[in-house]
Amino acid sequence: MHDYKSLFESVRRSSRRLGLLEEDLRKKTLESLIKITLENIPAILSANLLDLQKMDKEDPKYDRLLLTESRIKGIVEEIRQVISLPSPLHKILEKRTLENGLELEKITVPLGVIGIIYEARPNVTFDVFCLALKSGNGLILKGGSDADSSNRAIMEVIHQALEENGIPKEAFQLLPADRSATQALLEAVEYVDIIIPRGSQGLIDFVRKNSKVPVIETGAGIVHTYFDETADLEKGKAIILNAKTRRPSVCNSLDCLIIHQSRLDDLPGLLLPLLEKGVIVFADKQAFAHLPSHPLIELAKEEHFGTEFLSLKMSIKTVSSFEEALDHIEKYSSKHSEAIISENQKNIEQFLNVVDAAAVYANASTAFTDGNQFGLGAEIGISTQKLHARGPMALQELTSYKWVVRGNGQIR
Amino acid sequence: MHDYKSLFESVRRSSRRLGLLEEDLRKKTLESLIKITLENIPAILSANLLDLQKMDKEDPKYDRLLLTESRIKGIVEEIRQVISLPSPLHKILEKRTLENGLELEKITVPLGVIGIIYEARPNVTFDVFCLALKSGNGLILKGGSDADSSNRAIMEVIHQALEENGIPKEAFQLLPADRSATQALLEAVEYVDIIIPRGSQGLIDFVRKNSKVPVIETGAGIVHTYFDETADLEKGKAIILNAKTRRPSVCNSLDCLIIHQSRLDDLPGLLLPLLEKGVIVFADKQAFAHLPSHPLIELAKEEHFGTEFLSLKMSIKTVSSFEEALDHIEKYSSKHSEAIISENQKNIEQFLNVVDAAAVYANASTAFTDGNQFGLGAEIGISTQKLHARGPMALQELTSYKWVVRGNGQIR
Repeated sequence: MHDYKSLFESVRRSSRRLGLLEEDLRKKTLESLIKITLENIPAILSANLLDLQKMDKEDPKYDRLLLTESRIKGIVEEIRQVISLPSPLHKILEKRTLENGLELEKITVPLGVIGIIYEARPNVTFDVFCLALKSGNGLILKGGSDADSSNRAIMEVIHQALEENGIPKEAFQLLPADRSATQALLEAVEYVDIIIPRGSQGLIDFVRKNSKVPVIETGAGIVHTYFDETADLEKGKAIILNAKTRRPSVCNSLDCLIIHQSRLDDLPGLLLPLLEKGVIVFADKQAFAHLPSHPLIELAKEEHFGTEFLSLKMSIKTVSSFEEALDHIEKYSSKHSEAIISENQKNIEQFLNVVDAAAVYANASTAFTDGNQFGLGAEIGISTQKLHARGPMALQELTSYKWVVRGNGQIR
Repeated sequence: MHDYKSLFESVRRSSRRLGLLEEDLRKKTLESLIKITLENIPAILSANLLDLQKMDKEDPKYDRLLLTESRIKGIVEEIRQVISLPSPLHKILEKRTLENGLELEKITVPLGVIGIIYEARPNVTFDVFCLALKSGNGLILKGGSDADSSNRAIMEVIHQALEENGIPKEAFQLLPADRSATQALLEAVEYVDIIIPRGSQGLIDFVRKNSKVPVIETGAGIVHTYFDETADLEKGKAIILNAKTRRPSVCNSLDCLIIHQSRLDDLPGLLLPLLEKGVIVFADKQAFAHLPSHPLIELAKEEHFGTEFLSLKMSIKTVSSFEEALDHIEKYSSKHSEAIISENQKNIEQFLNVVDAAAVYANASTAFTDGNQFGLGAEIGISTQKLHARGPMALQELTSYKWVVRGNGQIR
């Protein structure tokens, strides 16, 4: 068995002063990374080919695993964006002088060492490295075995960029693609400050259940949009179409349309654009009765509520009141993104107040739940928990803080 | 076996809208609590007597368990302070209008349901209830069996205050003093958002190891103060005496004095006031050789470093350089509070930058690590982890936030 402990210790030790590097050096290092990546496109693509050859082309993971020259150039563009983001470190969050003359500052510092467990998406290797370097954190990556050859080629490029700039590469490590490595990482309480799983619900559940290290859960979005009694039909049509079909595979996409029973006559009109895009609709009894027969419209079963479809599927729930809509959301929401379409200000404000989710919307598409859209810059995921970070997790959420106290002999 | 699940569900359900109560109602409820508590002093004291009768008077827990009329009046004063603190809810942390017209607000909301596991300190029952009500959180308490009768009497008073003000008492519950209740609470992922253990290191370790619910660790402070080459002797004397002897039983008290070897001649003078207070000193070889023989001065063993004494004991480590002091702290610190005494600005700034702890001090006593001292109000503990809350955890740290997005039909 691999000696993970000494590897973890080495990451911990060598990452201790990453928070103190000059921002210019971080930028220079990311610029080196861009240069070296572009020079090594053939090497990365041939490593990627080794992984691809082992996978069935019909596997939905194939496309996520696939790197191409143009995809690598897209990644390079993202690195450029990270370079231009403001540093999240050394920000003074609070500052005050106490009566006794003590000067207090609450300033941002790196979390320490971040562990990422992810599946066959080699672009994540680039992403999280850039965010970790920028936020002064050490990094322990555990990628999927399907992408191991690609990940190793990318880590080589990353290590070259670090070496060129005199930053200890020991602080950024990729574990062997081996289950025992995952287990060791989940137990590395002394060496790792936070673990972020990125991937399927199964992966996230496994990490949450088995980790001794604090975990930030990202992902699972069971997203509702409620079409209220007073909703504007045209706004509703555009919002529902966008929330469902813009990118059905992402966590902020719509899963369940809730409709007030007084608006069931508008339902066919609301659904038409979705049906044209091939969305399969699971309608509850009342809604089903109001819809023409259509090959894509089925009667909903209980399992169609509280489900994250991640595909062109959507359920419909009919409610007889605003309160019933709130209850349905409370029962089935994963507290990611929830929306109301309404022209009733009282209902809007009550919805925004009462609904417990990372992002709550009035008259807008839930597709906006995204770090870049919110103006936070590149995100590492959307947190669906309430501790530390909620909603889009970007650079700032990869920091902690400390209290710095300057005195002149004060005692209590 | 008790049906904890339905109890947890009831707390979750009835606490959902606690965040929406008017601040005035919270204040009125805490005022009712003061009134009812004062009226029920005899009932609380006789319940407390039942607990006390089961405990040996020599047990150090006896004093923590003991309630008296004057202690209850002290608790009432603390409730008054909580009433006067600003509400941590509905604070707008960020606000911006996106180019597309979407209005974004990041506002504070309650965490949801807080679980507290604590030992024989019935005052904690009052404390955490007040903070939970003020921050809009439901509460599940698991107190020590030693204090069960006291805790039940206090909960009765709390429930009366809630009933008088129309707030659902189901949202604030005390579990049976039974191990199976602890186990159930640690697994209540769906119902509890955060667990905070309050008590001994053993309790904290147990909770961290066994909880499926996110835990905030509070407590353990292995605290160092470094007396640098250029340290001012008088400041040093006062700071070290204060940090060690003000309240040796609390987590911010000094455990290890690190001294630069060039200042060993000052060591007897630094220690004199501590020896007069009865502090037992474990000095390393070099320091020991510089000290007169004294019944309270012993040669240190390895076990005396990295130990939280919580009593009138202190170790001494001699270093030959500033860097060696930093290394010693890195090796043994629990990242709670660390201090430097120095007149060298470069060393001071480097110490404050490099040392990784919740609170880092220059020329001041670590006894200031405390929510009230930092101006944060009543605290629920001192977090020694980096996620969510670091250092004193007060009302603000019992909140999360949500993103509120107001639109007019925006799609992405």
